[in-house]
Order: sequence, then C-alpha cells, then structure tokens
Amino acid sequence: MKSVITVELPQQSYDIVVAPEGVAHLGNWMEPLKLGKKVLLVSNPIVFNHYGAKLNASLAATGFEVSHCILPAGERYKTLNSIQKLYDAALNSRLERSSTIVALGGGVIGDMAGFAAATWLRGIHFVQVPTSLLAMVDAAIGGKTGVNHPKGKNLIGAFHQPRLVLIDPQVLTTLPTREFRAGMAEVIKYGVIWDAELFAQLEAAERLDQPRYISEDLLQTILTRSCQSKAHVVSKDEKEAGLRAILNYGHTIGHAVESLTGYRVVNHGEAVAIGMEAAGRIAVELNLWTPEACDRQRALIEKTGLPTRLPAGLKIDEVVATLQTDKKVQAGKVRFVLPTEIGTVKVTDEVPSAVVHQVLQAIGSP
Amino acid sequence: MKSVITVELPQQSYDIVVAPEGVAHLGNWMEPLKLGKKVLLVSNPIVFNHYGAKLNASLAATGFEVSHCILPAGERYKTLNSIQKLYDAALNSRLERSSTIVALGGGVIGDMAGFAAATWLRGIHFVQVPTSLLAMVDAAIGGKTGVNHPKGKNLIGAFHQPRLVLIDPQVLTTLPTREFRAGMAEVIKYGVIWDAELFAQLEAAERLDQPRYISEDLLQTILTRSCQSKAHVVSKDEKEAGLRAILNYGHTIGHAVESLTGYRVVNHGEAVAIGMEAAGRIAVELNLWTPEACDRQRALIEKTGLPTRLPAGLKIDEVVATLQTDKKVQAGKVRFVLPTEIGTVKVTDEVPSAVVHQVLQAIGSP
Ligand SMILES: NC(=O)c1ccc[n+]([C@@H]2O[C@H](COP(=O)([O-])OP(=O)(O)OC[C@H]3O[C@@H](n4cnc5c(N)ncnc54)[C@H](O)[C@@H]3O)[C@@H](O)[C@H]2O)c1
Ligand SMILES: NC(=O)c1ccc[n+]([C@@H]2O[C@H](COP(=O)([O-])OP(=O)(O)OC[C@H]3O[C@@H](n4cnc5c(N)ncnc54)[C@H](O)[C@@H]3O)[C@@H](O)[C@H]2O)c1
Ligand SMILES: [Zn+2]
Ligand SMILES: [Zn+2]
Repeated sequence: MKSVITVELPQQSYDIVVAPEGVAHLGNWMEPLKLGKKVLLVSNPIVFNHYGAKLNASLAATGFEVSHCILPAGERYKTLNSIQKLYDAALNSRLERSSTIVALGGGVIGDMAGFAAATWLRGIHFVQVPTSLLAMVDAAIGGKTGVNHPKGKNLIGAFHQPRLVLIDPQVLTTLPTREFRAGMAEVIKYGVIWDAELFAQLEAAERLDQPRYISEDLLQTILTRSCQSKAHVVSKDEKEAGLRAILNYGHTIGHAVESLTGYRVVNHGEAVAIGMEAAGRIAVELNLWTPEACDRQRALIEKTGLPTRLPAGLKIDEVVATLQTDKKVQAGKVRFVLPTEIGTVKVTDEVPSAVVHQVLQAIGSP
Repeated sequence: MKSVITVELPQQSYDIVVAPEGVAHLGNWMEPLKLGKKVLLVSNPIVFNHYGAKLNASLAATGFEVSHCILPAGERYKTLNSIQKLYDAALNSRLERSSTIVALGGGVIGDMAGFAAATWLRGIHFVQVPTSLLAMVDAAIGGKTGVNHPKGKNLIGAFHQPRLVLIDPQVLTTLPTREFRAGMAEVIKYGVIWDAELFAQLEAAERLDQPRYISEDLLQTILTRSCQSKAHVVSKDEKEAGLRAILNYGHTIGHAVESLTGYRVVNHGEAVAIGMEAAGRIAVELNLWTPEACDRQRALIEKTGLPTRLPAGLKIDEVVATLQTDKKVQAGKVRFVLPTEIGTVKVTDEVPSAVVHQVLQAIGSP
C-alpha cells in the first residue's frame, strides 16, 4: 500500500510519497528525477543510527555517491553555526548545481538541510525523508526552511521546495511517544480546519496515543490525508498570506503557552492541543460552533494523550499579554482561527478580550 | 534627465531608475512601493561617509524610520560573519516582513545586504543603491545575492529580486579610477554581446578613462543601455541557464587570469578586458569574427585604460590548465562565448585547444 500526492507548484511540482519500507527504496524514488550523482545526507546521530545504513544502501545501489553530515540532535543546534558545518560538508563533497541534499530526521534536520540546499550555490536539489510525525505531516511540506537566531525562532530562512518528500510510516515505531503525540496535534488540526472525513476516521479508532495501537491502514490514512491538507493549503498560497493562515489554528494561544513556559514544560504539540481547546471554546462562546462539536474535539485530543488544560501555575493575564506581542498582531487586534464546523474554520480579529479571558479561566488549573 | 527601465518578472516587476541627484530623492522613489516604515541601511564607512547623510535625510523626510549597519569595506569581509552582523542589526531594529533593507555601496555591500534581505524572516524587501560602476551595470541587476565561503567565491547565496534599483551617476565622481575602469569592462561587454549602438557611442567618445571626461549625456546612456542589456538577458532567463550564459563573454579566460594572480595583481574588470581580447582573437582565428571588428574592440578597451595583454609572468600552460577546472566545464570541454558581429555572440564548446594556446601566446608578455 502506498500513496502519492503531487504538489502542483508554478515552478516545479513534486511528489509526497507515503510508502511503508520507503527508506529502503529512496534511491528508486529519486532515480526518475534526473538528479546529479552526488548526494549529501544530513541527519542526527539518533536517527542516522536507526535508518542511515538502509538509506545509504538504497542510494548506493541506485548509483548515487553519498557523503554525510551528522549534526547534533535538538532544537538548540538549529543555528547558523550548524549551517556553516553543512556548507563545509557541501564544499568537501564537492557538491554541484545538480547535486542533492537529503534530510533524514525530524523538523530540526529538515529545516536546516533545506536552508543549506536553498543557499548553497544559490540553490541545489533537496529531498526530505521526515522521520518524526510532526515533520511528516507539517515541517516537510510547504517549502519553509531555516534556523533560529539566538533571540528568536525561525528568524533566518528561505523558501525552497523539495524535489521529493518520502514518508516511511514504519520509522514511527522508534519515535518517542511524546514526540508522536506532538505530531498528532497537527493531525487533529487538519481534521478540524479542513478534513471532516479524517476527523471521523480518527474518532472511529479505539486508541490513538501510540503508533503501535494504530492499524497500518489508519496510519496510512492519517499521513496521506494530513499531507494532502497541508499541501493543498500551501500550494494555493505559496508565500504566507490568505489561506495559509488557517494552518495557525490552535497556534495563537498555543504559541503564548509555549513561550511562557520557556519551550520546556509544554512541547509544541501539547501547546497546540491546548490552543485548539481554547479556540474551540471561544468559537462556542461566539455562537460560531456547537458545544457538541467542541466536545468531540476535546474527546479526540484526550484520546491522543494530549492536554486540554493550561499547565499549572500559568497566569491568565500573562497569556493575554503575550498574545498582544505576537508578531502577527496588527493594530492591537489578535487574530484567531475559529471553527464553524468540523472541517471548516474562519479567520477573525473580532474576539472580545473578555471572551478570551473567560475561556482561559475555564481551562486554567483549578 | 532620467531613465526608468522596468524589469518584468513573473512574481513582481521592479524599476531601475537612472537619475542624477537620485541619492537625495531615494525616499520619493520608495514611497509609491507601499513598503513598511522601517528601513535598515547597509553600507561601508567610505561610501556612507560620502552619501549616508543625504540618503538618510531623504528617507527621513518621506517618513521612513532608518537604522544602520556599517560593515567594513572590501571583498574579504563578504562573509557569513558579516551576514550575522546584519541579522543582529535586523533584530535590533525589529525589522518586520514589510520592512526594507537598502544597500548603499558597491557589489560587495549589495550582495551581502541582498542575501540578508533574502533570508531574514524568509525574505523582506530590498532596495539597491549601487555606487560603483560595476554594481550599477552588473551586480545590482539580476537577483543574485550572497557571500563567499573561505574556500570559494559566491558559494553561499540566494536569488532575491530588489523592489527598486536607484542609480545616481553623480556618485561616480568619488569612485577610484581603477574601480571605474573595472566597471567599463562590463559596459564594453554589453556593447559586444548585445548592443552595437552602445558600442558605437562609446567609440565616438573622445576619452573614456575617467568619469570626469565623459559627458553627462553619454554617462546616462552608458548606464541606461548597460542596465537594459543585463535586465533583458536575465529577465528572459531568471535562473542561470540558456541566454544568461552570454554574460560570461570575456569571463572564461578572465576568471582564470584573476584566480592565477590571486585576485590581487589584476582586478575583475581588467581580467575581463583581457578575456574579451582573447575571445575576440579566438573568434577571428575560427573565422567567426572579422579582424577589423576585433581591432575596434581592442581600441575601445585601450581607450578606457584597461589592459589587453596577459600580466607579466603568467604561464600560458597554467591559464589553460585553470580553464579546465572551471565549474562550468562539462566533459572536459571549455565553453566560450565568441562574437560573430559587434552586438552578437554565440556560445560554443568547440574551440580547439591549439587555438586557445596560440591566442594566449599572442597576447602574452613579450
Ligand atoms: N518548515 C516548516 O514548515 C516547519 C513546520 C513545523 C515545525 N517546524 C520545525 O520543526 C522542528 C520540530 O520538528 P520535530 O518535532 O520533528 O523535532 P525534532 O526534529 O527535534 O525531532 C524530535 C526528536 O525526535 C527524534 N526523532 C525523529 N525521528 C525519529 C525516529 N523515527 N526515531 C527515533 N527518534 C526520532 C529526533 O532525534 C529528536 O530528538 C522545529 O524546529 C520547528 O520550528 C518547521
Ligand atoms: N550579484 C551579482 O550578480 C554580481 C555580479 C558581479 C559582481 N558581483 C560582486 O560584486 C563585487 C564587486 O563589486 P564592486 O566592484 O563594486 O566592489 P566593491 O563593492 O568592493 O567596491 C569597490 C570599492 O569602491 C568603493 N566605492 C564604491 N562606490 C564608491 C563611490 N561612489 N565612491 C567612493 N568609493 C566607492 C568601495 O568602498 C570599495 O572599496 C564582488 O563581490 C562580486 O562577486 C556580484
Ligand atoms: Zn504547529
Ligand atoms: Zn564580470
């Protein structure tokens, strides 16, 4: 069983392939793309240890010359300094315009490898082999690449589209549970903002909290439909504007919660889960959404093992103040993405701050 | 007297404005572009000293909030390290997606400021105010931005189009003569590869070796027609391929001469002048060009004060060997751009190496 989603773009289209055993066949998927012989494989020690040898073997068997650059794992290494290491590796491997950088890893590796590919020789080929659920359904799609500045996340970057995204669901078996759940938050998001059918299939599953309880079929569906949603939204809106804004569902309050807890207590997916709960309740208060739909969303989030309440000790006033400083705030009005049905949202900056307060109070720690 | 050349691009078109007193009116030219309020002005101490105050005043008068980042002058500072300083300045000035980076300087400043604009927040607005002749007629047009890697020139970079290029011919009065001549090599190049009328107007001038001997009218014509040639070629071929290759006229042997002399004895323009003389002679040997046309080209180069003979001590064999290592060499065949008429060239990799040898011998030091 495999799915291929073609992302149509003005310059060059590319495929997202969801295929069990995909890692062992990367070379075959790359062959028809007429890429040069040289490949620089970028990964971190954890992921490379699990899947590096398989990927290598497949690339070598199809005639690619592979060199490696293994960067330390973790968001705190998503820096210009790591990019400098990638440039040195690109130079030492004598990469040419026709060469390819392959990212094997989560969103951190994908963002960095993509930025190096965007800027080495003013742009060389790029292939994504995302290995975390978040990278599969979110980070690997849409062409955003980049690194953090010491004073802010993702401030440095470029748009650079991959030539191929290869998703092998089987690599999720080694992903830590908490990382898996973080990705599930984005999956639920796609259900609410875009894909009621995906939402229904998630509801029908008995357990969603670990990949091993999810059937191969359902996992394939989750990956395929999530990628379709993101690809559809971003290909209609290649640069950030209009439609792309709906992808921020759950992220307005989510970002505030993440940053107030220093990106440590709560991870991105957990923050988004809390943010979706908040946005859902705001929509109910404003009579945009039914309480029943909001309850269904909460049940789904909880089935995944994700939180729906603010972390203990977080001050409501601080959350509201942080919302105001978000870079997307215009003229003091916070922009929210709010559901109107399961599968449909609207973007609005007309949410009274009293409503925000009330909802945060309701989901605050008792 | 002013000229406006509109460069048509699929995403967003922009104007190249050639206007005496332009520096004092930058703000007015930027106003209609609907840019954000914040501007980060990038320059070096020499150029900023001459023109910074004027530019500042104009931007302030039209309501822009200007901050500065002054980088040290010189090619050896065209590094990722300088880019990091630009990022810090962008952060400290709180640049937003709608903000603009303005480059005031030669090609070195333009390339770096452009790369920072390409990669800060994944791309913000960029305005070029080129102050060297080379930057005016070449570096500022075409969207190439970037920096050097310690082991190779321009290896790191991105394509990023400016929103405006403002050329003020009057700033050339302070440009060192040798830098002026370097730019004239590219001007003559446009005459030979594309614009016979420009070539004829250059021939008609009494002196070309210093800007002060060139009439205001002729200078305006030189700048306008050169920009038109480059803009036309690159807008037909936004990424490097096909047509854009003709811009390498004189650069094949030119690059070899530059790199063999360590980028010190001979500057880029001087190397291109020597390269054009060599390419012209090769074309004559191959019966593609008339000896008369080649003589006319030599007379024009010499009138500008540029060399047409190899620097003393350079070994012919080394030049030929270096040609072979050029990154554009495919399957061992060196690609040449050769004139067939004044105003027309063809690209060929069918030049017998005996002919290359013979021509280099003829222009070698006696
Ligand atoms: N470019 C985009 O559009 C976009 C979108 C969303 C997020 N992001 C970025 O993505 C990053 C977060 O991505 P992430 O959540 O994948 O984090 P990550 O890359 O740090 O991966 C999380 C952890 O899981 C490990 N891991 C990954 N796959 C594994 C596997 N199959 N088996 C065992 N361990 C595995 C990694 O080594 C890491 O320790 C952030 O930097 C964020 O800014 C980018
Ligand atoms: N992006 C492109 O398409 C492209 C094309 C060609 C060259 N370039 C790049 O451009 C650079 C060369 O540009 P350049 O020749 O302008 O060199 P440059 O920027 O170093 O300028 C040459 C010197 O002239 C000084 N100067 C510039 N304008 C002046 C003025 N009006 N008055 C007094 N002094 C002035 C500068 O301070 C510098 O010392 C190289 O790095 C090259 O790679 C880029
Ligand atoms: Zn997210
Ligand atoms: Zn040149």
